[in-house]
Amino acid sequence: MIIIGEKINGTRKAVAQAIRERDSDFIRKLAKGQAEAGSAFLDVNAGTAPEREPDDMAWLVTTIQEVCDTPLCLDSANPAALRAGLALVKRTPLINSVSGEMKRIEGVLPLALEYKTGLIILALEDKTGIPGTSEGRMMVVDRLVRRALDGGLTEEDLYIDPLVTAISTGTDSALITLDTIKRIRAAYPQCHITSGLSNISFGMPLRHMINRTFMAMAIQAGLDSAIADPNDRQLYEVMLASEMLMGKDRFCQGFNRAYRTGRIGDERKA
Amino acid sequence: MIIIGEKINGTRKAVAQAIRERDSDFIRKLAKGQAEAGSAFLDVNAGTAPEREPDDMAWLVTTIQEVCDTPLCLDSANPAALRAGLALVKRTPLINSVSGEMKRIEGVLPLALEYKTGLIILALEDKTGIPGTSEGRMMVVDRLVRRALDGGLTEEDLYIDPLVTAISTGTDSALITLDTIKRIRAAYPQCHITSGLSNISFGMPLRHMINRTFMAMAIQAGLDSAIADPNDRQLYEVMLASEMLMGKDRFCQGFNRAYRTGRIGDERKA
Repeated sequence: MIIIGEKINGTRKAVAQAIRERDSDFIRKLAKGQAEAGSAFLDVNAGTAPEREPDDMAWLVTTIQEVCDTPLCLDSANPAALRAGLALVKRTPLINSVSGEMKRIEGVLPLALEYKTGLIILALEDKTGIPGTSEGRMMVVDRLVRRALDGGLTEEDLYIDPLVTAISTGTDSALITLDTIKRIRAAYPQCHITSGLSNISFGMPLRHMINRTFMAMAIQAGLDSAIADPNDRQLYEVMLASEMLMGKDRFCQGFNRAYRTGRIGDERKA
Repeated sequence: MIIIGEKINGTRKAVAQAIRERDSDFIRKLAKGQAEAGSAFLDVNAGTAPEREPDDMAWLVTTIQEVCDTPLCLDSANPAALRAGLALVKRTPLINSVSGEMKRIEGVLPLALEYKTGLIILALEDKTGIPGTSEGRMMVVDRLVRRALDGGLTEEDLYIDPLVTAISTGTDSALITLDTIKRIRAAYPQCHITSGLSNISFGMPLRHMINRTFMAMAIQAGLDSAIADPNDRQLYEVMLASEMLMGKDRFCQGFNRAYRTGRIGDERKA
């Protein structure tokens, strides 16, 4: 699994405060913890204040790169903030994200094409928001994939997010996401499929257990990446088990190694 | 999920002893605990001593029926033991099981047809054992289903077991089982699909976690029954979450009720 570490997000209170106060230690610690736990990318979201966002993004990118060389996932709808990050990154980043919304097609997509970055594509648009069927989501995805490929990106550069709505508000929520994943995998065999997934359990008890169960199903459907907390030990266990069960861990070597080194299993042994 | 409670099994040491000593309290307690935890059937396996098996089966059936009226799943390859159980059951039982093995086709299948019981069908045969491909397993299943339907059973009477081999001995083990489940579901939409599943984790650490993850995937593929311990709280949580995610729990009512009544979630509240 390609884990995109989700924790450096300025919409979280503690992170917003650290950004405001330029608390480098706090950010470095978050970066290091997620990198060591196996993140392939670190999401970097500087928060929602548009006038400060470019400066904050630049400071975050610089600060993170002082302690780890994990590629970054620049998370913003603000072209100026994305440019500020793109100017500083040492390795090819992801951009999070383009969608069918005009503002993102015009503001974000050109930057991904110009810098030849990886690109997260969301299955939503201005008119319908998140379409209520997998067919509707695929229409948005198809349009955006075509634009990205025509602009010079490859299928491997794309991280398509099928989007997840709460099971508490729609009995078919998970089925729609899983069907969208299967359709994306069939249509674009070389692309990546990523998602946050945890929206599924909004409003429910036992959220983490529901999220883990849904993760297993999504991996079975074709998900190969997740925007998640790599330090969530139980989630990580289910990720490794799911990939093993999907035949992607020859002789169970990855799973057994993770167990022997204390990365999964009884925490006291870690 | 149609849970077939697995605990009254004479190949387990404590149960074997209880059968030998005619310890009714022990058996009644196992029966009651599994019935109250939501078993649709209770498996009854009298153990492996052929000469004593009919008497032991009769005693078990009588003893269990003193404390609960959950239908039984008579688990034996011995026609005499099955007849002893069939003569005493108060409700239509399952027979566990017929396979492509000649001995079972000749000894077990006729009893299921004569008594019009439910029937567990195993995807294995004399020559190849458990076929190493889903196509091979389906050939066995197709033959047995045809015989059962020709003999007067309905698709709803059949509980087809795709069989599970250890992931530690074959990287594709789970994929073969999941593909077999999908094929069974497509070929026989009205049948039940059941399995023990826990073989998947034989030889691995974190067996229960692997089993739960595999359960979610199997339910996604079409499994609607499991031979399991209904008192395994974490497994039960994943079963309920999986069915909810598969759109089978309208407005999440079943899941939320189970949580409110303490059947799932923090055990201290139970």
